[in-house]
Amino acid sequence: MRVDGLATLRSAVPGKLSFLSNPRYVNQLASCKASAVIIDPELASACQSAQLVSSSPYVTYARASQLFAKDESADAGIHPSANVHPSAVLGEHVSIGSNVVIEANAEIGEGALIGAGSYVGARSRIGKHSRLFPNVTVYHDVRIGDRAVIHSSVVVGADGFGFAFDGRRSIKIAQLGGVQIGDDVEIGAGSTIDRGALDDTVISSGVKIDNQVQIAHNCVIGEHTIICGCSAIAGSTTIGRYCTIGGAVGIIGHLQIADKVMISAMSLVSQSIAEPGIYSSGTGLLESKEWKRNIVRFRQLDDMAKRLRELEKITLGK
Amino acid sequence: MRVDGLATLRSAVPGKLSFLSNPRYVNQLASCKASAVIIDPELASACQSAQLVSSSPYVTYARASQLFAKDESADAGIHPSANVHPSAVLGEHVSIGSNVVIEANAEIGEGALIGAGSYVGARSRIGKHSRLFPNVTVYHDVRIGDRAVIHSSVVVGADGFGFAFDGRRSIKIAQLGGVQIGDDVEIGAGSTIDRGALDDTVISSGVKIDNQVQIAHNCVIGEHTIICGCSAIAGSTTIGRYCTIGGAVGIIGHLQIADKVMISAMSLVSQSIAEPGIYSSGTGLLESKEWKRNIVRFRQLDDMAKRLRELEKITLGK
Amino acid sequence: MRVDGLATLRSAVPGKLSFLSNPRYVNQLASCKASAVIIDPELASACQSAQLVSSSPYVTYARASQLFAKDESADAGIHPSANVHPSAVLGEHVSIGSNVVIEANAEIGEGALIGAGSYVGARSRIGKHSRLFPNVTVYHDVRIGDRAVIHSSVVVGADGFGFAFDGRRSIKIAQLGGVQIGDDVEIGAGSTIDRGALDDTVISSGVKIDNQVQIAHNCVIGEHTIICGCSAIAGSTTIGRYCTIGGAVGIIGHLQIADKVMISAMSLVSQSIAEPGIYSSGTGLLESKEWKRNIVRFRQLDDMAKRLRELEKITLGK
Repeated sequence: MRVDGLATLRSAVPGKLSFLSNPRYVNQLASCKASAVIIDPELASACQSAQLVSSSPYVTYARASQLFAKDESADAGIHPSANVHPSAVLGEHVSIGSNVVIEANAEIGEGALIGAGSYVGARSRIGKHSRLFPNVTVYHDVRIGDRAVIHSSVVVGADGFGFAFDGRRSIKIAQLGGVQIGDDVEIGAGSTIDRGALDDTVISSGVKIDNQVQIAHNCVIGEHTIICGCSAIAGSTTIGRYCTIGGAVGIIGHLQIADKVMISAMSLVSQSIAEPGIYSSGTGLLESKEWKRNIVRFRQLDDMAKRLRELEKITLGK
Repeated sequence: MRVDGLATLRSAVPGKLSFLSNPRYVNQLASCKASAVIIDPELASACQSAQLVSSSPYVTYARASQLFAKDESADAGIHPSANVHPSAVLGEHVSIGSNVVIEANAEIGEGALIGAGSYVGARSRIGKHSRLFPNVTVYHDVRIGDRAVIHSSVVVGADGFGFAFDGRRSIKIAQLGGVQIGDDVEIGAGSTIDRGALDDTVISSGVKIDNQVQIAHNCVIGEHTIICGCSAIAGSTTIGRYCTIGGAVGIIGHLQIADKVMISAMSLVSQSIAEPGIYSSGTGLLESKEWKRNIVRFRQLDDMAKRLRELEKITLGK
Repeated sequence: MRVDGLATLRSAVPGKLSFLSNPRYVNQLASCKASAVIIDPELASACQSAQLVSSSPYVTYARASQLFAKDESADAGIHPSANVHPSAVLGEHVSIGSNVVIEANAEIGEGALIGAGSYVGARSRIGKHSRLFPNVTVYHDVRIGDRAVIHSSVVVGADGFGFAFDGRRSIKIAQLGGVQIGDDVEIGAGSTIDRGALDDTVISSGVKIDNQVQIAHNCVIGEHTIICGCSAIAGSTTIGRYCTIGGAVGIIGHLQIADKVMISAMSLVSQSIAEPGIYSSGTGLLESKEWKRNIVRFRQLDDMAKRLRELEKITLGK
C-alpha cells in the first residue's frame, strides 16, 4: 500500500497514514478515513483499515514522520554573500546560507547546514550534520556536537550574568569559559545558553530544549533530559539524566537535581532534589473572586495554625 | 487649531494634543498646558482648553496617535543586497530591506515591508501591507494575513517540541504542519509561534501578542484575543475569542479556554475553562520573613484541615 | 610571579590565579594547585600558595578577569557588506561588522563595535566604546549611553503593547516615545526593551539586565539596579536604585518600587513597594502527591478560617 502523508485520526483522508498512540482515542477508529493506521497489537482488532502494527505506536509514528519531512536544506555550497574567514575549516557537503558569518578558526562539520544570517564565532565548532536555522548566533569558543538542531534566534555562548558589587557599582566578571553541547541536542527558537564564568556550561548528548529556555552560566544538564518552553535555570545548577522539566519552570542557582526528576509546569525549584519523583509548586487556578478570599487567608496561615494548636490544647487536653 | 504632537496631561506643552481617558486623572486638567484635550462629554466642563469631545477618548487617542507615527518604511523597492529567489512572487510597492532572504515560491503581498535581515522561508506568504521589522524569521509554509505587524527577533514556524521516547532516547517527530495567521495580527519582539505537528497552528484575525510570548504547536487562538508579555501556551490548547491573557501566564497543553476569559498575571492555567470570567493563581507578595512563616504552614495545610475537622466533631458534636 | 589564567579553587592547575570569596570554601585551599590565590587578609593564613590579598576578593577577581578576556573586537573599520546611510555619523575607531545596517542620521560613538547582522534605526545613538554583539536590533530614536554591552537577539525600541478596544477590535496606539539607556548598562541575550507610548522608556546608568528580560513601555529603571533572567516588567512601572530583581519575577504595570528592594525568584509583584526589604511569593516546592493534598486545602482556606473562628468562639468564649 502506498501512503503520501501522515494525519491524525480525525483529519485523515484516504491515502494518509494515521496512528493511535493513546487508547482514549480508540473510538475515533470507526470513523477514521486513513488508508492505514499505526496501532498497538492489542488494539488492532478495533481497526478496520490496513494496519502497521507496533508495540510503540508513538515511536513508530515519530520515525514515519521523518520520512515526510520536507528537506529545506537548499543546495550544498557556500552562498556568495557569506563571509567565511580564510582560517575556518569547512567539512564536505556543508551548506552555508546567505549573509552567514564564520569567524577565524571556526569549524563546520561535514554535511552541516548553517542558515541565512547566522553567526559562528571564532574557534567555535559545529558538528557533523548539524543544522542551524536562520538567524542563530553562536559566540566564540562554543563546541556543538553532531546532528544538533538549533532554531532561529537562539544565542549560544553569550556572557553569563556575573558582576561583583564594589559598594557603588557592579564590576563585570569577564566570562572566560565556553559552552559544550553534546550530540543529538535540539534547542528551540529564542533559547539562550550562556558561556561559563571560568569552566564551561555543559549540555549533554540527547538533551532536548524547547523555545525561550534560559540556561545560565556553568549549568550542567545531564543526558536525555527534556526542558520545556520558557523554563529558566540559574547559574551553576546541575540537572541529572532523563529529567523532564515542565514549561515555565524556574530553578535557582547552585542546586543539584537527581536523575529522573519531573518538575510540573511553572514550579519554582528552590532547593536541591536528591530523589527521583514528581515535584510541584503553586496554588492552582481559581476564579479570581474565590482566589482573593483564600489568598487573604494565606497571609493569616501561620496565625491560624497557632490558634488551631491552642484550641487543640484546650479541647483535647494535649 | 493646529497641533503638532500628542502628550500626556502632565508633560504636554502648548501645541500638543492630550487626552483624558481615566477619570482618576481629572484633577490634572487644571494645570495641563496642552492646546487641546480629547475628553468625554461628561468631563468636558472640567477642561479649560480646546476639546476634542469623544465618547471613547482612549479610542480617539489611539486613532490620533497613528497620525503622528513616524513612517520608517524606507523607500519602496528591493535592496540590492537582498536575496530573492526567482520563483518568489512580490506584490507592487513592496519594500525589501538589506540582506533579506526570500526563499522559493514565497509570496510577499502588495505594499508589504520586510525589514533588514529578515528571512521568509519557502512557500510562505506575507499578506498585503504587512510589516516585518528587522531580523524576523519566518520558516517555510507559513501563511500570514494582511496588515500584520511582526517585531524583531520573532520566529514563526519553528518546529513544535515533539519527541517520542523509545526507552533510551527521544526520537524527533518531524513537524509537518504549518502556521496560519489571520489579518490584523501583531506579534511582539522575541515571540515564537511554532508550526504544527500534522495540522497547522492557528492565530486568528485581530489577535495581539506582546513580547516574548511562546505559542506551541497546534494551538488555536481565537479572534481578537490579547496575550500579554512572556506568557507561554503549551501544545494543542485552544483559546477562545476576546480573551485577555495577562503577562507571564502559563497555560498547559490540550486545554479548551472559553471566549471572554481573563487570566490574571503569572497564573498557571492547568485545566480547561468553560465559563467567561476572571481567573487567578499564586499566593500574592509578602515580605520574605512573613512569607516564610506562612509557607511553612502551607505544607501543613492538609494536616491542619484534618485537625480542624477533629475539633469540630468534638466541640460541635457533628 | 606570572599567571596565565584564572580558575576556580577546584579546577586550578599551576600557572593559574584562583580566588576565595566565600569562606565556606576555605577547606578547598589545602588541595588547591593554583600558583596564587586572591584572598581576604583574615583568611590568608590558611593559604599555602602565593597570595593576592584583598579586602574584597570577589571584586578583585572581577577586575582580574577582565585582564584575561579574549578581545573579539575584530579590526576597527567598516566591513564592505555593511550598509551605512550617508547621513549616519560614525566616531573614530568604530568597528562595523558584516551585513550591519545603520539607518539615516544614526550616530555610532568613538570606539563602538557593532556586531555582524545588527541593525541601528534612524536617529538612534550608540555611545562611545559600546558593543553590540551580532544580530542585535535597535529601532529608531533610541539613545544608548557609553560602554554599553548588548548581547545577541536583543531588541531595543520595539513598539510598546498598547491598544484601545473599540468594542469590536483593538485599535493600535502608535508608540511615539523612544528609549533612553544610560552609561555602563549591560543587556543579556534575547531581552526586549520597548519604546514608550508618548514619553520614553528609561534604563538608568549602571543597570545590569540578564537574558530574556522584558521591559515594557514607559518603565523607568533606577541606577545600578540588577534584573535577573526571564523577569518581566509591565508598562509604566518605576523601579528604584540598587534594587535586585530575581529571576523570572513578574511585576505588573503602573507600580512604584522603592530603592534597595530585593524580589526573590519567580515572585509576582502586584502592588507598589514603599520600603526597602526582601519580598517573596509562591508556595515553595513539594513532592507532587503532597502538593496536591495541600493545594486542595488552599481552596478551602477561607472556609477553614471561618470554621476555626467559630470553634474559638465556642471553646474560648470570645
